[in-house]
Amino acid sequence: MSFRAVDYRPGVLLLLDQTRLPTVETYLELRDVEAIAVAIEQLVVRGAPAIGVAAAYGIAVAAHRGLDLATADARLRRTRPTAVNLMWALDRMALAATLDPSPQALDQAAQRIFDEDAAACARIGELGAELIPDGATILTHCNAGALATSLHGTALAVVRAAHAQKKRIRVFADETRPVLQGARLTAWELHRDGIDVTVIPDGAVAHFLGLDMIDLAIVGADRIAKNGDVANKIGTRGVACLCRAHGRPFYVAAPWSTVDLTKKSGTEIPIEMRDPKEVTELKGVALCPPGVLALNPAFDVTPAAWVSDLITERGRTGQPVGLGLAKLSGA
Amino acid sequence: MSFRAVDYRPGVLLLLDQTRLPTVETYLELRDVEAIAVAIEQLVVRGAPAIGVAAAYGIAVAAHRGLDLATADARLRRTRPTAVNLMWALDRMALAATLDPSPQALDQAAQRIFDEDAAACARIGELGAELIPDGATILTHCNAGALATSLHGTALAVVRAAHAQKKRIRVFADETRPVLQGARLTAWELHRDGIDVTVIPDGAVAHFLGLDMIDLAIVGADRIAKNGDVANKIGTRGVACLCRAHGRPFYVAAPWSTVDLTKKSGTEIPIEMRDPKEVTELKGVALCPPGVLALNPAFDVTPAAWVSDLITERGRTGQPVGLGLAKLSGA
Repeated sequence: MSFRAVDYRPGVLLLLDQTRLPTVETYLELRDVEAIAVAIEQLVVRGAPAIGVAAAYGIAVAAHRGLDLATADARLRRTRPTAVNLMWALDRMALAATLDPSPQALDQAAQRIFDEDAAACARIGELGAELIPDGATILTHCNAGALATSLHGTALAVVRAAHAQKKRIRVFADETRPVLQGARLTAWELHRDGIDVTVIPDGAVAHFLGLDMIDLAIVGADRIAKNGDVANKIGTRGVACLCRAHGRPFYVAAPWSTVDLTKKSGTEIPIEMRDPKEVTELKGVALCPPGVLALNPAFDVTPAAWVSDLITERGRTGQPVGLGLAKLSGA
Repeated sequence: MSFRAVDYRPGVLLLLDQTRLPTVETYLELRDVEAIAVAIEQLVVRGAPAIGVAAAYGIAVAAHRGLDLATADARLRRTRPTAVNLMWALDRMALAATLDPSPQALDQAAQRIFDEDAAACARIGELGAELIPDGATILTHCNAGALATSLHGTALAVVRAAHAQKKRIRVFADETRPVLQGARLTAWELHRDGIDVTVIPDGAVAHFLGLDMIDLAIVGADRIAKNGDVANKIGTRGVACLCRAHGRPFYVAAPWSTVDLTKKSGTEIPIEMRDPKEVTELKGVALCPPGVLALNPAFDVTPAAWVSDLITERGRTGQPVGLGLAKLSGA
């Protein structure tokens, strides 16, 4: 890995500013909880596991600054509603603080979350690579890469592991409007790692499936309900539905921290609605006429039945995903 | 109609420059076949019926300039490969020229093509409005509006007719990457006509279908094969597939000039591949890292079986679309 989305030195959170990729590569140094919260809201850091890791370091930063930890927790918790890794990481940090609220202890607790996420992602890569045939063209949506996690990625950890095994693979990256995480981020990190990547418009997925030019799809997740329904970046549900209609497997890769057994199904997962300006404008260029409304849901829910397999560091669920989750939850 | 995409006075073709919408509304005055061909290639005018009308006027312009009509025909014919209305209109003009190649006669022949297209679109609106329930939310993709035809539009003629009948309707316009004809053009013309329009990212279609917020979809076409397969803007196949999976009707509206009975099925329709820069850049802003490839197919093919009904000025085909086309072709 030649970069880190999230890095830390005592009292300072370093974030690779993903809003400026792919053209500018710069790190922000954040020493304040409010600045960290705003960075999460504005997508300087994004991707469910990376948000969790960044928020954990945010609590450590709060301890270094002598801030009230409960206030810091509440501020970070309300940044984004869908990715459950955020709540999971803050719960872990709150528990750590009850044992030892010193800055040093919280630095270590946050570092453990980073390290465990990195280990989970590496394991997901190994387990998922078994599903990738030699010569495969792999569709992915949004960015479930090293930029979205501590290291390696989730869906892209699988891609990286298959590539490391010398499988000849090609990735089609959906551009992923409106924020273009596919065009800007997935293309950036795969190209940098020497993995063959081609960007396609979101609307071109059915065309290439129809031409038998896509062998499988693999994506990450922001929250997975008990029954196996998957909340992920807007557009994921469509990709899954199209793969199903064209007889191609649709895989999800996510660490166990993304699983939320308190939510019976996807209908209970809160879906973040973001500013319509992300749709109507791009870097100051108006894409829509003035006065026209746009809707900008940041996530959608894919039914468990459309998921061919779910890869976690505890193992693969197989189908049905909900039953597999139940088995793995005892593991 | 408060605007015309294509207008004409003897020897001069006037095109509303659609590359500059929605921010700038300006007409180009073209007096030369090469300039008209380039305008078609660069999407100053687009939409299958409008391309046909513009090319017909292009032949009239050639006659006014004293140019060789066969050379003008060949240049215009190779501008864009998918929309068959272009070839159809040029065939009509070639036939007219064998009878009377004078500028005046060709002005009239081109004007007849314009008028017939306008009448066909008006009739499509009437016939299609029967399919629109009061209170419907209508999804459309790309722009099959007055900007894509002589007047009224095809899919949007249906929307306009339903609106004129005082049905309470709402339109969801897919933004339609990469060229954003939905965000830029459909939103512009519907908003201007006081019809409720909301832009959504292409990837959000499955989300809103899943929430039962879309009642039906209606789109235009660039070429329809004998068996009823429909070539239309990239993304159309996905919309049709998602509508089918969610139990919602998917309608196509097109004038008979879009039907190509010489093509047995959609696999025989040539699909234009356009410059990848339409995907990787937007108004000078880089959306992808340097060196990353993109694929930019401009059209896709929707299987006839996924089309709930096809509305032409000769009537509706019903299902199966291919059988309906055979019946209407004798009409």
